[in-house]
Amino acid sequence: MVKKSKAKSVAKERQESLLELLRKKGEEVYGDIDSGKYPKFSIPSRSVSNIVYDKSLRQYILGSNTAVRSSHNTSQLRSFTQLMWLAFFANRLTMEKKSSTLRDVYYSSQAFAIDFENQAESDNIIVDLEAMLARAREEFRIFPEERSAVFGDLDIEYTIPGYEGKKMNLSNHPDGYAVGSSLTTADLISTSAEMVIAIEKGGLFTRFVEENVHSKFKAIIVDTGGQAPRSTRTFLRRLNKEMGLPVIILTDGDVYGEHIAMVIKSGSANAAHLRELTVPDAKWMGVWATDIEKYKLPTIPMTDADIKRCHDLKKDPRYQKGIWKRELDVFLKIKRKAELEAFSKYGLTNITDKYLPAKLEASKSL
Amino acid sequence: MVKKSKAKSVAKERQESLLELLRKKGEEVYGDIDSGKYPKFSIPSRSVSNIVYDKSLRQYILGSNTAVRSSHNTSQLRSFTQLMWLAFFANRLTMEKKSSTLRDVYYSSQAFAIDFENQAESDNIIVDLEAMLARAREEFRIFPEERSAVFGDLDIEYTIPGYEGKKMNLSNHPDGYAVGSSLTTADLISTSAEMVIAIEKGGLFTRFVEENVHSKFKAIIVDTGGQAPRSTRTFLRRLNKEMGLPVIILTDGDVYGEHIAMVIKSGSANAAHLRELTVPDAKWMGVWATDIEKYKLPTIPMTDADIKRCHDLKKDPRYQKGIWKRELDVFLKIKRKAELEAFSKYGLTNITDKYLPAKLEASKSL
Repeated sequence: MVKKSKAKSVAKERQESLLELLRKKGEEVYGDIDSGKYPKFSIPSRSVSNIVYDKSLRQYILGSNTAVRSSHNTSQLRSFTQLMWLAFFANRLTMEKKSSTLRDVYYSSQAFAIDFENQAESDNIIVDLEAMLARAREEFRIFPEERSAVFGDLDIEYTIPGYEGKKMNLSNHPDGYAVGSSLTTADLISTSAEMVIAIEKGGLFTRFVEENVHSKFKAIIVDTGGQAPRSTRTFLRRLNKEMGLPVIILTDGDVYGEHIAMVIKSGSANAAHLRELTVPDAKWMGVWATDIEKYKLPTIPMTDADIKRCHDLKKDPRYQKGIWKRELDVFLKIKRKAELEAFSKYGLTNITDKYLPAKLEASKSL
Repeated sequence: MVKKSKAKSVAKERQESLLELLRKKGEEVYGDIDSGKYPKFSIPSRSVSNIVYDKSLRQYILGSNTAVRSSHNTSQLRSFTQLMWLAFFANRLTMEKKSSTLRDVYYSSQAFAIDFENQAESDNIIVDLEAMLARAREEFRIFPEERSAVFGDLDIEYTIPGYEGKKMNLSNHPDGYAVGSSLTTADLISTSAEMVIAIEKGGLFTRFVEENVHSKFKAIIVDTGGQAPRSTRTFLRRLNKEMGLPVIILTDGDVYGEHIAMVIKSGSANAAHLRELTVPDAKWMGVWATDIEKYKLPTIPMTDADIKRCHDLKKDPRYQKGIWKRELDVFLKIKRKAELEAFSKYGLTNITDKYLPAKLEASKSL
């Protein structure tokens, strides 16, 4: 069955509402000046004390505290000016549909004699703008450097200049299509896939494509390349929300793998100001600590750093129940970890022939 | 003008000759056993004292010393057996056209009760097999984990199972096509491009595609993602040798960028046993140390580590003349470095509007 997206043009709609939002902020500044007031911005506070876990949203969010960047306060004038310029620059990037990176913005500021001490300072102001607009920076066209890849039956339609209206199907190049600014801003049109499998490693991505996982299990396969880049997380969310596809995550069987899955599912504390970087219904299906014994996998001993990381995550509210808690406890008990490649002990296709079908079956009742 | 590759099917030819080579090595082992001798392998020595720089080949090569792995010598029996097994496994991967990684091979050995202490030991035996066959491991289908991306008018024809004979043009997905096992084993068919531009960073790759560098300058654009993965270096070599395209390299303006370019051009000392991982005619066109003043780029001070790295490279025979020496000397004099993004100070498209055309013009007389 072919699924079609209901949305008209998600990309266009979001761009228009972002530009509207920026215009409104600009009008407020002009309004203040016209009526003789010092303009200021009010943004949600991102201090640790204002980050709380929201059980219904299943992610960290910001509380109700706000911070002010006022042009009336000499200690805030610098950050007010930086934020004002960034809003202007973001508006221009969005209107012209030009892509940039965090690093580009830092250097671009020098063209306008805007003073940033270093890139850390400009990065911070970019997060302020995200918080003020409640929009991810990718929406105002500041994209991550890193690339991941996707392969599977998905029809998309580009929205970037020069490619507007051009359609593409993502199942013809088996090494995968890079997930960059064109793909994350494309409209998702239709798919015959019934699920998305996100996998942590390029080698396994290739294995899955070679073994026809995409057609055997009607899947779109995404290589996250370790911790999934933000645009890949957005792309996974869209596949889930717009196309209605369940998202299954496979990682190495260690505490970092478990957390890679958690970040895809519920974001990270330092993106608590955003709602669009999570896939709350995504399921981490392995490699679990309990799989290590069940599948008799070759293991590696956990290091002291691994064990410390386990204890740290046990304090995180998201790891208090279900498989998240259970698997951390088993890791701490067995003090061993196993990689996705460990299945190769039983043949290169063991992971796709035996493990994957068992896990996909199990995912239905999880 | 459309260039066509003269080669019939490079992929098929190389696969057949590799299988022939493996068969010959196997026959020698059987021959020894049949005539009552202990079988052994002779491989070029990879010890530092046997690595020499070859001026005519413009790369490091191995000298004439050889090392023996004999089943008659108890201290060599272990490595002989490991190499024997690996040759068998490589043969199987090549025949079945299955991809694997260094890590896969390590775990796969366990299925055959072949004892490797750790992955470092199996990696080392893989390099032994490369040296013995004078073939890169990608040819016996052990691929790197990392991906880079390519975009531009290039028609290819896949040779992997399930895609044999399928054609693809690499100019429809602006985020780029991942360079993995399918692409590096594909036959290159034709192109209207007149050059290849290899660039170090994903953000700049996107900029180049957005600004239509591929059509304005008739270029195939490759994102190396930092140090180019081995399969990407092979792909660049093939674009140069089989399609006759000049290769231009752009990196950050620092000692690491200069060395990224050098490794694409002439390989690394630890791949001295291979001939197929270099692009001797590739040209590093920037960012040069001399560009920093010429283009008034914002800079960052070099660290002590940067300066030490400069002094180390000055001892390398490849850095004794031409721009390689000149630019190192200027870096050491100004003690400052600049990134590709630094051009954004003069506008996001300054690098494609001004810098690139000047550099492409200069490359003609270099």
